[in-house]
Amino acid sequence: MALIVQKFGGTSVADIDKIKNVAQKVINVKKAGNKVVVVLSAMAGETDRLIDMAHRAAETPNEREYDSLISTGEQVTITLLSIVLNSMGYPAKSFLGFQVKVLTDKSHKKARISLIDTVSIKKELKKGTIIIVAGFQGVDEENNITTLGRGGSDTSAVALAAALKADQCDIFTDVDGVYTTDPNVCNKARRLDKISYDEMLEMAMTGAKVLHPRSVEMAKKYNVPVYVKSTFSDKGGTLVTREDKDMEREIISGVTYDRDQVKITVVGVPDQPGVAADLFTPLSDKNIFVDMIIQNASLEGYTDLTFTVSKKDLKDAQKIVESTAKKVGAKKVEIDDQVAKVSIIGVGMASHSGVAAKMFKTLAKEGVNIMMISTSEIKISCIIQRKYMELAVSVLHEAFNLAKKK
Amino acid sequence: MALIVQKFGGTSVADIDKIKNVAQKVINVKKAGNKVVVVLSAMAGETDRLIDMAHRAAETPNEREYDSLISTGEQVTITLLSIVLNSMGYPAKSFLGFQVKVLTDKSHKKARISLIDTVSIKKELKKGTIIIVAGFQGVDEENNITTLGRGGSDTSAVALAAALKADQCDIFTDVDGVYTTDPNVCNKARRLDKISYDEMLEMAMTGAKVLHPRSVEMAKKYNVPVYVKSTFSDKGGTLVTREDKDMEREIISGVTYDRDQVKITVVGVPDQPGVAADLFTPLSDKNIFVDMIIQNASLEGYTDLTFTVSKKDLKDAQKIVESTAKKVGAKKVEIDDQVAKVSIIGVGMASHSGVAAKMFKTLAKEGVNIMMISTSEIKISCIIQRKYMELAVSVLHEAFNLAKKK
Repeated sequence: MALIVQKFGGTSVADIDKIKNVAQKVINVKKAGNKVVVVLSAMAGETDRLIDMAHRAAETPNEREYDSLISTGEQVTITLLSIVLNSMGYPAKSFLGFQVKVLTDKSHKKARISLIDTVSIKKELKKGTIIIVAGFQGVDEENNITTLGRGGSDTSAVALAAALKADQCDIFTDVDGVYTTDPNVCNKARRLDKISYDEMLEMAMTGAKVLHPRSVEMAKKYNVPVYVKSTFSDKGGTLVTREDKDMEREIISGVTYDRDQVKITVVGVPDQPGVAADLFTPLSDKNIFVDMIIQNASLEGYTDLTFTVSKKDLKDAQKIVESTAKKVGAKKVEIDDQVAKVSIIGVGMASHSGVAAKMFKTLAKEGVNIMMISTSEIKISCIIQRKYMELAVSVLHEAFNLAKKK
Repeated sequence: MALIVQKFGGTSVADIDKIKNVAQKVINVKKAGNKVVVVLSAMAGETDRLIDMAHRAAETPNEREYDSLISTGEQVTITLLSIVLNSMGYPAKSFLGFQVKVLTDKSHKKARISLIDTVSIKKELKKGTIIIVAGFQGVDEENNITTLGRGGSDTSAVALAAALKADQCDIFTDVDGVYTTDPNVCNKARRLDKISYDEMLEMAMTGAKVLHPRSVEMAKKYNVPVYVKSTFSDKGGTLVTREDKDMEREIISGVTYDRDQVKITVVGVPDQPGVAADLFTPLSDKNIFVDMIIQNASLEGYTDLTFTVSKKDLKDAQKIVESTAKKVGAKKVEIDDQVAKVSIIGVGMASHSGVAAKMFKTLAKEGVNIMMISTSEIKISCIIQRKYMELAVSVLHEAFNLAKKK
């Protein structure tokens, strides 16, 4: 008898009929002789509706109250699924964060799980009850409701799987697995049967939306096998797991992109120690995440500093950077929001030479200019002009032969 | 410095603008130097929306899950009000049932409060925080969410006022107080400045919708002064309190009506011991509340049994009664759903003779036939034909001189 954690996202529980469909999937797994723990998101659109209400109540809503407000979305879906399952003759019980309890730190809107008390869940599992846990939410030590940030339900599911030592964690979504690239951008995209935690993490970090990076980190840390599957089809699926020999044979596993980038260049910065710190400290103080940074060679005591931030942070970032630029005596600040980041990811990269060269050559051949480059052991990212993004994804997918199963 | 509990119903918090209006009222009381505890209902219509969802999920929703589902309505309003107050510079903190905690028994959908832990609320009140508590909800000893039944937020407010030994409990609603009768039925209806717990209880039990009977019982038990006020006007208000000399001077305080009654007559019941028990036990087993009962004098060993039930219970009651009638050998079952109950209430009744006679005479003069009568120390109720209800209310209001302040 296996213990399986199944997580269903917002589109999978968007209305009562869809929740009934989820109930059927859960029953199938239960009937096959497994213990089942289900984790749900809120109905698609519901969290946004609640966030909108909070912002109509106040420009900057109190974070404790905001978390308690938006956590109601999951409370609705888990109780509805439990009502459906019970009415079909399958004893089920919903658990909110405080009922589990899922203990987190005090960082509202982006809390981190510190401990999951599994006593009551295990007691119910022993009785044969189907457990349904609210994703995205927890409580801090003073019983204040906290939320885990966007994509938090994936994290809830993996954390529960880890705490319960589950045999596997299924993440159900509206696509049937992890693809070599986005099928909407490149029609030759191929579903991967298997991918390593590290590759999945890089793909999630560089733009793939299928899994939240934090859930992948947690899966890796506790070695939880994660299956990405479709709620609406029984075929397919991708296993996210530890690296194995098969994976190393493939040099590149995927091509990702991120349209959500803006390039900021501070031109003519006096090349003195401490200037970069002067620029980036106020940004980090405001929780603005700076992705890629390059500094050009110094010319006559002046240098250019270029970096990227997320589009949503542009307004705040621009204000801070322009004020700092003035302070340090830089010449000007240039903004380019017509850029995109294209990345290739693969564990095989580490043991194969020439991967970067091949990427640059492939892009050059199509006349795509590379503005910024950043690399890790298993990833190369380039900032290019936005208009070339789809083209770049397609030619890279082709060049690294991703359409064919090796 | 007084401690004031203020409860606002669903129409008072129906949208963000109305919630901002409530915030202003709360701030006024706070600014006047008081400690404030606010209790809120869900937005008007929201609880019904959630109940509807539950019933689309299953015909008979699991009660534990149902309670957890419908309790989200109050979670939304209390957090929104807290967001508004905090943004206006008034520290506020919302409390859910489990956060207070409001401990109840295990009877889902109609739980009774057994204990309110006031430690955390008192700690926050000391700091000057405005406390906002979710009405209608609690948790049982195993942290399952329970709800108190319709009108439960009134009960939450009075129970909190009692537990905190508050100086007063304001119940804000869409009318500005308790009236001698429904102004929609009789335009001479007059707002009462003061009414006793017992009278208020009888009025609530016989059809007045302004306060829930359980909240009045609790207010009486713990001697909590309750003010019924309008959210949308600063004028008026009615104090519900202990009996005093003033009240005894008035013979009748109010006329109420209830259109929600159906009369069931079992004709030709063999007049043997135990027959009434045979009839009423299965009804009470199904939680069907039987209001008035009369049994006619026995004629040749047969009798007629007449009683009233609530309209919503008619279908179930009819099935049970017809089957039992057959079993005990009764001749037939007659249903009359064209009836109404009209009641007069007043503590002065006990010390004044002739009140009942005056009521019957007044109705007879207008040709209104009385089908059933029931009385208590401070109330007389008559079942009459539905079509005479408005007329009966008006002539009784007139006969007992209720329009004039004494």
